Amino acid sequence: MKKKIRAIQYGVGPIGAAIVRLMREKQSIEIIGAIDSDPAKAGQDLGDLLGASDAPWGVPVTNDAASMLGESADVVIHSTSTLLPNVMDQLMACLAAEACVVSTCEELSYPWRKYPELAAKLDAEAKTWGVALIGTGINPGFVMDKLLITLSAASQNIESARAVRIVDASKRRLPLQKKVGAGMSVEEFRAQVAAGAIKHHGLPESVAMVSDALGLAVDEITETIEPVVARERVQTPYLEVAAGQVAGVHQIAHGYAGSKEKIYMELQMFVGATEPADTVEITGNPNLSLTIPGGTHGDIATASVVVNCIPAILDAPAGLRTSRDLPMCFLPPDANP
Amino acid sequence: MKKKIRAIQYGVGPIGAAIVRLMREKQSIEIIGAIDSDPAKAGQDLGDLLGASDAPWGVPVTNDAASMLGESADVVIHSTSTLLPNVMDQLMACLAAEACVVSTCEELSYPWRKYPELAAKLDAEAKTWGVALIGTGINPGFVMDKLLITLSAASQNIESARAVRIVDASKRRLPLQKKVGAGMSVEEFRAQVAAGAIKHHGLPESVAMVSDALGLAVDEITETIEPVVARERVQTPYLEVAAGQVAGVHQIAHGYAGSKEKIYMELQMFVGATEPADTVEITGNPNLSLTIPGGTHGDIATASVVVNCIPAILDAPAGLRTSRDLPMCFLPPDANP
Repeated sequence: MKKKIRAIQYGVGPIGAAIVRLMREKQSIEIIGAIDSDPAKAGQDLGDLLGASDAPWGVPVTNDAASMLGESADVVIHSTSTLLPNVMDQLMACLAAEACVVSTCEELSYPWRKYPELAAKLDAEAKTWGVALIGTGINPGFVMDKLLITLSAASQNIESARAVRIVDASKRRLPLQKKVGAGMSVEEFRAQVAAGAIKHHGLPESVAMVSDALGLAVDEITETIEPVVARERVQTPYLEVAAGQVAGVHQIAHGYAGSKEKIYMELQMFVGATEPADTVEITGNPNLSLTIPGGTHGDIATASVVVNCIPAILDAPAGLRTSRDLPMCFLPPDANP
Repeated sequence: MKKKIRAIQYGVGPIGAAIVRLMREKQSIEIIGAIDSDPAKAGQDLGDLLGASDAPWGVPVTNDAASMLGESADVVIHSTSTLLPNVMDQLMACLAAEACVVSTCEELSYPWRKYPELAAKLDAEAKTWGVALIGTGINPGFVMDKLLITLSAASQNIESARAVRIVDASKRRLPLQKKVGAGMSVEEFRAQVAAGAIKHHGLPESVAMVSDALGLAVDEITETIEPVVARERVQTPYLEVAAGQVAGVHQIAHGYAGSKEKIYMELQMFVGATEPADTVEITGNPNLSLTIPGGTHGDIATASVVVNCIPAILDAPAGLRTSRDLPMCFLPPDANP
């Protein structure tokens, strides 16, 4: 048996905590430490911080990233922020520590279009140190892009592509219900959208990834954010939405090649959604569609995709990778490293 | 622009012809020749042989494999037989010519369990010459294995897996309708099954691939073949099946770990199937399922998967690969080599 994969968790918010719990179930992974900027978390044992029944784990949480990254990890699981510019320094530090990186940073999932210079910088740094990094998760990273791209292998010719994800936010944690605007008035929702506070990030990244993979030559990506207004009262374990209030968010991204729409992606995330599902469609020869009835649970599945991706990123050529490039698969709990 | 990918088609039956037609649509691929053992085909121009409107293509068909393989192809598309022992010499000759191979040989899709020695021999030979080979197609190779394995990336834990493929054979070519036994009496069908003439190959290969990928530790694979009996008369463009006659085949493979069933795969292929679909399911945390309504057309989609796989096999590490290992994606017609 080879040595275990030495992993550092960077960012111990709700998603980071879910990732840590899942990594603990994998015999091939050893969590050697965690980094979090919150002074209230630093200094605790990671197991204690998560309220694990088998705590303490003897795994330190620190806010001193540099010193933790000096512990020669094989991989850093990075989950601190959505926006790529905000995490550039963190990612560069991980790479310089010669660690591969799997990040949930949505804008890292396919950064070449929005941040060509940052993407080139990360790619070069990763190659300098002989490691690979990837931004992934369930969306962006899987249901609206990787699944569509995988399905496209059965295509002879492709005209256009479409992905629709409908999420019942009732079953998600309170911060997410608030993040989609549940319970707000329509005016308040629009103000929050204008302020950039209500927005799922990642649709343009998925559109760009799919366009490049399928050769759809998208040269313009637009995005709209509208409220889903509750027609009747919705009660969740955490909050109540009255009829006429906002139940959640309805986001649409279009990818155009010239004046032609080539890619359509739609995300509905609201409390009380009765038919949650992930659906992708390819128009071409043949027409193909694929549905995951009930859809995939964002938090659970993001932790899954991230942890399951660890062997593939360790095995990948050095540089900036995306879920487009890598074969994706479950990591069995008892797999050898 | 780089040089085009130089491809040889090995075997110009119905599937080989479909592959050739699709390769002709890809700017990145140049077909330099074809090999077929049929003396009636040898000596013809490939375009003429296929009845192409733009024939002749100036692409020779020969039954002299050795001389054609001397033309330094980058890849050989191999489509001659289902059974691995029958094609070992052909595959070994392609590898020794330093060509990568994409084959539709069903038993090559995951050969380690049934033919460990042949698999090791092919792997060693491929590594000797610095090339890679793969057996793939829509089934085995995609709907019952690769899709399931891709979906598993969203799993935290997996108990068991299931794949059901229902094909309406009415829409397929006559040889396939005959191959599934359409129009036979039940007795004739059973005699043909006993003689090995009626059988879809590939289910045990898919079970083995999924077991290894998902860590399901299957140690026994069983397979049954039963007739689907027509309840009412079915008319296809090619033949008629009376009520009480065989409409097609119903094949089931089980994968057991000890006494526990871990994998179930079911293939129904019969004329008059009213709800064709490909469905894969994972029982675990979370439960996940995925359906392709209408299913994927075997011939069209096999040609798609094979041709779309060419860039990935050229890019793969030397050795024997499977669809489990490679990212799968559409090859755009105008993509650069």
